[in-house]
Amino acid sequence: MRIAVLTFDGFNELDSFIASAILNRVTRPGWKAEIVSPCEFATSGNGVRVARQQPLAFARDADAVIVGSGRRTREIATDPAILGELRLDPARQLVTAQCSGALILAKLGLLERVPACTDTMTRPAVEAAGVTVLDRPFHAVGNVATAGGCLASHYLAGWLIARAAGRAEAERVLHYVAPVGEKDAYVARAFAAIGPYL
Amino acid sequence: MRIAVLTFDGFNELDSFIASAILNRVTRPGWKAEIVSPCEFATSGNGVRVARQQPLAFARDADAVIVGSGRRTREIATDPAILGELRLDPARQLVTAQCSGALILAKLGLLERVPACTDTMTRPAVEAAGVTVLDRPFHAVGNVATAGGCLASHYLAGWLIARAAGRAEAERVLHYVAPVGEKDAYVARAFAAIGPYL
Repeated sequence: MRIAVLTFDGFNELDSFIASAILNRVTRPGWKAEIVSPCEFATSGNGVRVARQQPLAFARDADAVIVGSGRRTREIATDPAILGELRLDPARQLVTAQCSGALILAKLGLLERVPACTDTMTRPAVEAAGVTVLDRPFHAVGNVATAGGCLASHYLAGWLIARAAGRAEAERVLHYVAPVGEKDAYVARAFAAIGPYL
Repeated sequence: MRIAVLTFDGFNELDSFIASAILNRVTRPGWKAEIVSPCEFATSGNGVRVARQQPLAFARDADAVIVGSGRRTREIATDPAILGELRLDPARQLVTAQCSGALILAKLGLLERVPACTDTMTRPAVEAAGVTVLDRPFHAVGNVATAGGCLASHYLAGWLIARAAGRAEAERVLHYVAPVGEKDAYVARAFAAIGPYL
């Protein structure tokens, strides 16, 4: 299971790293989530410079893709070079987005007849792209999933793990990363959000 | 408010980036959380290479410090060069740790008579250092705070914001990063964890 976490300049650390770090707690052979970016380094909205682990072209060959979020998503969502490079395909990939990443999925035509979740700031732009936006943290239709609100990233990661490695593995990983003393409640809440889409 | 997020080789992305990204949503003049590391680049346990924003010496001059967590904390906690460089002082700084970072605070003598939170894997080592470990996500005594379980990072960030910028600002920031449709519940849960220590 190769997972591409798309991370562009201006990215939000929560939206790339919560999901990637949780996904990488799965220890199955060949399982790896990696930071994917058009340039060798991506700089976050807070000035954190991160070396990419894979180039953008990796996204179309990955088994699962998370389109991350950040300050420059609106520009990226209209950049034909980036959109053309992605060629995501829900027929053979799990295709997901966190927060403003939904705008990129919309521009790629992947949210036609698929309601989506996004953050409150991006919502008007996603709606303007013709997508129905839900007042919920997580939604999936088939192999396409979206999450809204930075901390909903752990729902998205949990869904990806449950889809690709089974519900028990997702429970194990979410239990590990949850706050001490609140682990069972966190896992139950996550499965209340993602369970209907498994 | 200058905040040092100590990030060592082998670091856990959740433990450095959830707190730093949430802290950087505070928009007051002079407020900034930065990734601090002994070397120019820190490489996470998952192979993510991040450029430091400040050298280690920055930690002793910062207004607040978060000691992050990772695979190599046990080695670091016995490295006299690193411990000697830190010189953290709760009399003039908010001094905090996430997960295994508690072990470094213990070795610095900052958890004497201060019960601590840490992750389940690090707990035996922190107890062996003579510290009482709590089965809770967050605890603070005066200016020293610890959090246990990766996702408890947002409690730690919320406490730091509430202490330095007020409760209303902490509520605003936590509300923004919480999952869509669950924002009020997330803020309430966070304040149930940190409220007794404000």
